[in-house]
Amino acid sequence: MRLFDPLFRWPALEEELTDAARVQAMLDFEAALGRATARAGVIPEASAAAIAAHCSVARFDLAALARQAALAGNLAIPLVEQLTALVARDDAAAAAHVHRGATSQDAIDTGLVLQLRRALGHTQPELERLANDLAALVEAHRATPVAGRTWMQQAVPTTFGLKAAGWLDAVNRHRARLDAVRARCLVLQLGGAVGSLAALGDRGWPVAEALAQDLALPLPDLPWHAHRDRLAELAAALGSCIGTLGKIARDISLAMQTELAELSEPAGEGRGGSSTMPQKRNPVGCAVALAAATRAPGLVATMFAAMVQEGERGLGGWQAEWETLTELMGLFGGALHHLADVVAGLDVDSGRMRQNLDAGQGLIFAEGIQTALGERMGRSEARRVVQAACARARAERRPLHEVLAVDGAVSRHFAASELARLFAPDGYRGSADRMIERVLAAHTARAAGEGS
Amino acid sequence: MRLFDPLFRWPALEEELTDAARVQAMLDFEAALGRATARAGVIPEASAAAIAAHCSVARFDLAALARQAALAGNLAIPLVEQLTALVARDDAAAAAHVHRGATSQDAIDTGLVLQLRRALGHTQPELERLANDLAALVEAHRATPVAGRTWMQQAVPTTFGLKAAGWLDAVNRHRARLDAVRARCLVLQLGGAVGSLAALGDRGWPVAEALAQDLALPLPDLPWHAHRDRLAELAAALGSCIGTLGKIARDISLAMQTELAELSEPAGEGRGGSSTMPQKRNPVGCAVALAAATRAPGLVATMFAAMVQEGERGLGGWQAEWETLTELMGLFGGALHHLADVVAGLDVDSGRMRQNLDAGQGLIFAEGIQTALGERMGRSEARRVVQAACARARAERRPLHEVLAVDGAVSRHFAASELARLFAPDGYRGSADRMIERVLAAHTARAAGEGS
Amino acid sequence: MRLFDPLFRWPALEEELTDAARVQAMLDFEAALGRATARAGVIPEASAAAIAAHCSVARFDLAALARQAALAGNLAIPLVEQLTALVARDDAAAAAHVHRGATSQDAIDTGLVLQLRRALGHTQPELERLANDLAALVEAHRATPVAGRTWMQQAVPTTFGLKAAGWLDAVNRHRARLDAVRARCLVLQLGGAVGSLAALGDRGWPVAEALAQDLALPLPDLPWHAHRDRLAELAAALGSCIGTLGKIARDISLAMQTELAELSEPAGEGRGGSSTMPQKRNPVGCAVALAAATRAPGLVATMFAAMVQEGERGLGGWQAEWETLTELMGLFGGALHHLADVVAGLDVDSGRMRQNLDAGQGLIFAEGIQTALGERMGRSEARRVVQAACARARAERRPLHEVLAVDGAVSRHFAASELARLFAPDGYRGSADRMIERVLAAHTARAAGEGS
Amino acid sequence: MRLFDPLFRWPALEEELTDAARVQAMLDFEAALGRATARAGVIPEASAAAIAAHCSVARFDLAALARQAALAGNLAIPLVEQLTALVARDDAAAAAHVHRGATSQDAIDTGLVLQLRRALGHTQPELERLANDLAALVEAHRATPVAGRTWMQQAVPTTFGLKAAGWLDAVNRHRARLDAVRARCLVLQLGGAVGSLAALGDRGWPVAEALAQDLALPLPDLPWHAHRDRLAELAAALGSCIGTLGKIARDISLAMQTELAELSEPAGEGRGGSSTMPQKRNPVGCAVALAAATRAPGLVATMFAAMVQEGERGLGGWQAEWETLTELMGLFGGALHHLADVVAGLDVDSGRMRQNLDAGQGLIFAEGIQTALGERMGRSEARRVVQAACARARAERRPLHEVLAVDGAVSRHFAASELARLFAPDGYRGSADRMIERVLAAHTARAAGEGS
Repeated sequence: MRLFDPLFRWPALEEELTDAARVQAMLDFEAALGRATARAGVIPEASAAAIAAHCSVARFDLAALARQAALAGNLAIPLVEQLTALVARDDAAAAAHVHRGATSQDAIDTGLVLQLRRALGHTQPELERLANDLAALVEAHRATPVAGRTWMQQAVPTTFGLKAAGWLDAVNRHRARLDAVRARCLVLQLGGAVGSLAALGDRGWPVAEALAQDLALPLPDLPWHAHRDRLAELAAALGSCIGTLGKIARDISLAMQTELAELSEPAGEGRGGSSTMPQKRNPVGCAVALAAATRAPGLVATMFAAMVQEGERGLGGWQAEWETLTELMGLFGGALHHLADVVAGLDVDSGRMRQNLDAGQGLIFAEGIQTALGERMGRSEARRVVQAACARARAERRPLHEVLAVDGAVSRHFAASELARLFAPDGYRGSADRMIERVLAAHTARAAGEGS
Repeated sequence: MRLFDPLFRWPALEEELTDAARVQAMLDFEAALGRATARAGVIPEASAAAIAAHCSVARFDLAALARQAALAGNLAIPLVEQLTALVARDDAAAAAHVHRGATSQDAIDTGLVLQLRRALGHTQPELERLANDLAALVEAHRATPVAGRTWMQQAVPTTFGLKAAGWLDAVNRHRARLDAVRARCLVLQLGGAVGSLAALGDRGWPVAEALAQDLALPLPDLPWHAHRDRLAELAAALGSCIGTLGKIARDISLAMQTELAELSEPAGEGRGGSSTMPQKRNPVGCAVALAAATRAPGLVATMFAAMVQEGERGLGGWQAEWETLTELMGLFGGALHHLADVVAGLDVDSGRMRQNLDAGQGLIFAEGIQTALGERMGRSEARRVVQAACARARAERRPLHEVLAVDGAVSRHFAASELARLFAPDGYRGSADRMIERVLAAHTARAAGEGS
Repeated sequence: MRLFDPLFRWPALEEELTDAARVQAMLDFEAALGRATARAGVIPEASAAAIAAHCSVARFDLAALARQAALAGNLAIPLVEQLTALVARDDAAAAAHVHRGATSQDAIDTGLVLQLRRALGHTQPELERLANDLAALVEAHRATPVAGRTWMQQAVPTTFGLKAAGWLDAVNRHRARLDAVRARCLVLQLGGAVGSLAALGDRGWPVAEALAQDLALPLPDLPWHAHRDRLAELAAALGSCIGTLGKIARDISLAMQTELAELSEPAGEGRGGSSTMPQKRNPVGCAVALAAATRAPGLVATMFAAMVQEGERGLGGWQAEWETLTELMGLFGGALHHLADVVAGLDVDSGRMRQNLDAGQGLIFAEGIQTALGERMGRSEARRVVQAACARARAERRPLHEVLAVDGAVSRHFAASELARLFAPDGYRGSADRMIERVLAAHTARAAGEGS
Repeated sequence: MRLFDPLFRWPALEEELTDAARVQAMLDFEAALGRATARAGVIPEASAAAIAAHCSVARFDLAALARQAALAGNLAIPLVEQLTALVARDDAAAAAHVHRGATSQDAIDTGLVLQLRRALGHTQPELERLANDLAALVEAHRATPVAGRTWMQQAVPTTFGLKAAGWLDAVNRHRARLDAVRARCLVLQLGGAVGSLAALGDRGWPVAEALAQDLALPLPDLPWHAHRDRLAELAAALGSCIGTLGKIARDISLAMQTELAELSEPAGEGRGGSSTMPQKRNPVGCAVALAAATRAPGLVATMFAAMVQEGERGLGGWQAEWETLTELMGLFGGALHHLADVVAGLDVDSGRMRQNLDAGQGLIFAEGIQTALGERMGRSEARRVVQAACARARAERRPLHEVLAVDGAVSRHFAASELARLFAPDGYRGSADRMIERVLAAHTARAAGEGS
């Protein structure tokens, strides 16, 4: 459904994932293969030049390619035929050297690798933008108190800065992970029919080396026609990023609920309305990330299921990857782009955060009070006293502060003013500031490393 | 990747799954809603007619819709806006009644339901074609001996008719299942903002009844905005069909292996060749079904994962369904269409089947011989004798027949001619014929039921 | 992790899924097979009796079975060996007839079918209990106003009864679905080595008929050793039930959030506490259902992926089902049991529901007001007026009621008292009551049908 | 189903994944936490010692733990209670310091991390054993000709050494990947209620540092209670390993088919037999790896789906991981162990490999012949000639060699003896030897790196 693409996708990235981009990437392979076979002395330089001259997608009839691919079983066969025909018009000798020594899968796999490299070239700076905007949120809200929530219940106070630092830290892990995966997994595919480069005789390896150099791709020790762990690793890295984006979106959308209203997505003309409810401001950016996070696990599973490929080149497994991996790449790009926009314009209502902290009869301070009481009356006794007070506060719908204030066991150890201070979130930050410092320092170090 | 569509898809079906078809289905909903609100006395008949007059996809700018959908968060909002603007040109009063009482999801869900109904209208006769061609295979090969294989090893002889009857029986189960699912799961969606039809006051139910009748869709007791079990059931039915198509394709592709060569996909100009190997006849139809079977489980999982939708209408889960379910529908159609073509032109080499039966030193007859010996020498003794003979045949690479012929324990009970007869597959069919009769009778009964 | 079982599982059901239950179910098959072969004249009645006498799990060494199964590749081989040895002690002739005509998979598959039938015998009344408790909730809260929420935002008012009716309706659909699946999918498996019953000569079919009758299982036209659509359908039905349980749990846990506090899980000694926070009452029952809903899609996908089984009996696919399907059954039972307890003791705070309705500056009434204004000032004008008022209310943090009250366009059409009435949720129920009646009537009809 | 464990699992590894091992790992955390809080001056050294003295699983009642965990919602709460009670018998003061500053999830997550570290300690040398045995296969069969197969059809000749080198190379990639994942993903979890270590006041960080050192686990900048990308990455690495094991098992089982008979799993008493067919030698080891490969994608998907966890600690997602990740670990261990045994005893029939190469009328040599002819008659003409010859050979069921020998276009360029030489697989190895050298060199370098 192309109509839904703008909702879920990122146009700048989608450009790299179009049919035309796929064909161009395969033609880039064919042009480079021509140059590499020439450099290795397999074909004349002039033939290589003649081939390269036609390796532009604009010269090809995509609709015809699509129809012929259906018969042939893959896209490379008709592409090579069309290319050969084009070259033959100018240079019959060169035409005989098109796709020399390669098999269809060499062109399709390397084309995919080139496409993915370009696509990751877009998501890399977008991840950086997201990380920088998250870092700014962390900075700004280091000390902003907010209810920490566990099991979807208020637990103990924390800071919004610490929450955002958790998001930032995860995003930076993914950046490192994607950098590593890109370097390790996007490698040249060239093996010929069964991976031995036999059709190139004793020139196979020199051709492979030249081709790898030409395309600036690592040359693996062996072709990987039926060993797909590199693509599975990439798919998993994308799926994991999407999972983190989904987690951030879940947090934001929970905080956007009408009754919490701690965060809002940026507003905008025509953005997030309803076809029937005039007051609605829907979390549309979060919806994109959550929808992607719902879809990614199944797509990742498909890439893993497709790994069991038969023999030198498999049946069905390879074909299952084609749409799945580009779909994952597109979903990742879309979720990233939309959530980066959400974070960039995120509206943080720290007043409401404070208000929500106080809304639960003060029960959220129970752990801190128990800890403080424990220092004076012993930890077991403190636990008993505070649990009883919580139960009473709940049953009588009274503030915990009131209940404790009239409890002799408490007032024996704490003056009223001391007790009041325990109901302030600032005093219960623990190591939050230190953790934030570490996360920000790591973020800065990464940025410095990239800048250098 | 639209380029790969012709490989994996079925053009006739894909027509129903295009963007234009989606928009038209939503417009069919809007037109029918206009008529239904008129019939229920909510809006004037003239307004309904004015609305319906514009409900044709040709009048809409799909690219603009797509762009606006990205901002709005769904497709219905800009579609209703464009429709309202179109209607307003002719009839300002009617324009105020466009989409009356409905929410975006009503239009999108019912549109999807209408699309799926049309798509299933294509796959139903195609499944029938596949079933009929399988039935013809069963008839033709009732008694054709072939090696039964378990754990991917030759086991005991069976008939190709029985194998094909297993395929046919499964396909007919899916036909019954899809009929039931279609009737049960493709129902009207109309609920308004939160499913109470509140914006229609006390006319909500009459409108819903009129709309259901107009669109010939069952009217459920309640809207199902956030209860997606019907769609999950449909997705599972499609996924299960694909699983069976994959199983048939696995069987055919195993039998097509060079060393077995019992079956071949139909040949054809430009079909199943290789970009480098001149002798290749690849099982391209099987590849389509196997690729679909590799992809379907993950897509089915997505539909199940999306079921956990929040409140009256959810966030992220609903959006995850849009592309997933139509993708499953398209993969099913493609796998079905391609495999139906494979079966229609399947080349069965019964001579090679017989030859393969004899290729394994006659070990495939061991169970039958053991059974026959058991009747005369007792089952335990027979098992001991035959196991020992198998081991010797294997170790000495001699035919089992020879080894048994010189075994005194055997010759005491069986004359040489009797023993030879045990190495003929025809004598070991068991209930195969009866099973085949039952499957064919059920197939015929179904056809008769449909014809009546 | 058996330690986690009590958390996620339902002990009464788990009894049916133990190793001992599996072995007993397989022994039930062997005993019945003995009787069936006797009835069909294949073996003496006395042998059947001798076999049946030993078909009790208590006589078997499960640890030895497990060890031997690891060598043999499945559980049936050593079980049949142990059974044969036991029978041989009493009756050597009978021993030769153990497992007569069957293959390992016949015993394992039919054993699984028997186990699943028993397990569904537990979940059926538990689903009924859940449905009845939901029906009671619907009755009690037909008219209880609550905020309808879409996209995780307050949308328009609805009733808690309608929300619960949605849950009830889905649960009743699942009850019907499971009844149908149980009848259709739990069928006898008996085919011998390759599904032809060849080892039983011409007595195969009579044996199969007698066995099906003895075990009260439908007899399919063909064995289904490598056609697993029936199990996939059952897995999908379980997964879909779990999805609905997850949806209900999501709704309940969202309503239990500290800031909403509309619903609470039943409290209990030691239930839902925290190891560190004394005030915590965690939604532990919801967590079980949500965890099950997170796990089920992947398990369902596995059952679908396993459908592509080779030849007469497959390699790897069949084995992948063994733990997956019983795991799904167990997760379904656990989620059902825990959520049924949650619903049975659900604490509904209708006061808080009302309070939350009023908390969003009255914006939740916007759609209703727009509808009412539309009747007097025209729908387009009403939409414009209300949207502007919502924007102002939001920007100035004032109640929508106040903003509208001073808007001349509104006061021209509505007296103050009329306007105030529009801010009462009761007037905006639409067809909710009618929908509830239909759902309750269907529930009652089902109960009556079962009772009769 | 514990009964099936020996089939699919590896006992040595399963020891690390038992309930007792889980509890012990959590107790290891509690003991170390006691020491760390003492070192940081939070509790007395004597208390730490008193706590550690009881941190042995043998002192705990696992059945009671399980029952209480069901009420509490997790295992840590009753474990901490039992531990506290045990410590209190000796030292009431120490009892108050049990689990000081930690939350349940700290104990459960770190316990899991410790378990996984131990489990990976078993699989690491087993992967090494597999790699070494594969390297030996590569060495032994560098030049053994075998049919290369693509799309499940014979394609062109290759060597069994090259095929095994592909397996080896993939296994070595996984070894590197698992080493990296282990170092990166198995980190300490310690955060207290909401990740701020607030209950430890200003001593949180020193405690965390001391604990990390004590357990020899990396200390992350932040707790990861609701950020599960590390576990997802580990799950993906395990799933990917399983995918490769499945691919190897698929290749071996295809080569073990009766009609190919190129490879056999090692035989053994009671191994791979049938309950009814005396001749059967089933590929039981391959079945284990293939079943694991069928199950892993769904389990990996579950870990990814579980990533969307709410707030500081989530609801349902975390709980979904507990059984899923240990199940993946167990399946990986089992598949690895069984397949390592298969490879260690693999029976390679190089004679049969040669025979199969020649079985397909010599068509497998078509690409090589076309290449050779191309050098003399031009590539386009050669393609035309060879394709026509293949078609004729197929139609007339004659050897390709014969057809070409009488083709004037061929005999003009090739003498009979020259032509014959083209039908020898040895001449068509291309870069296979070089690739093998590289893979073996990398393997040796890795081994040297580990030995040093």
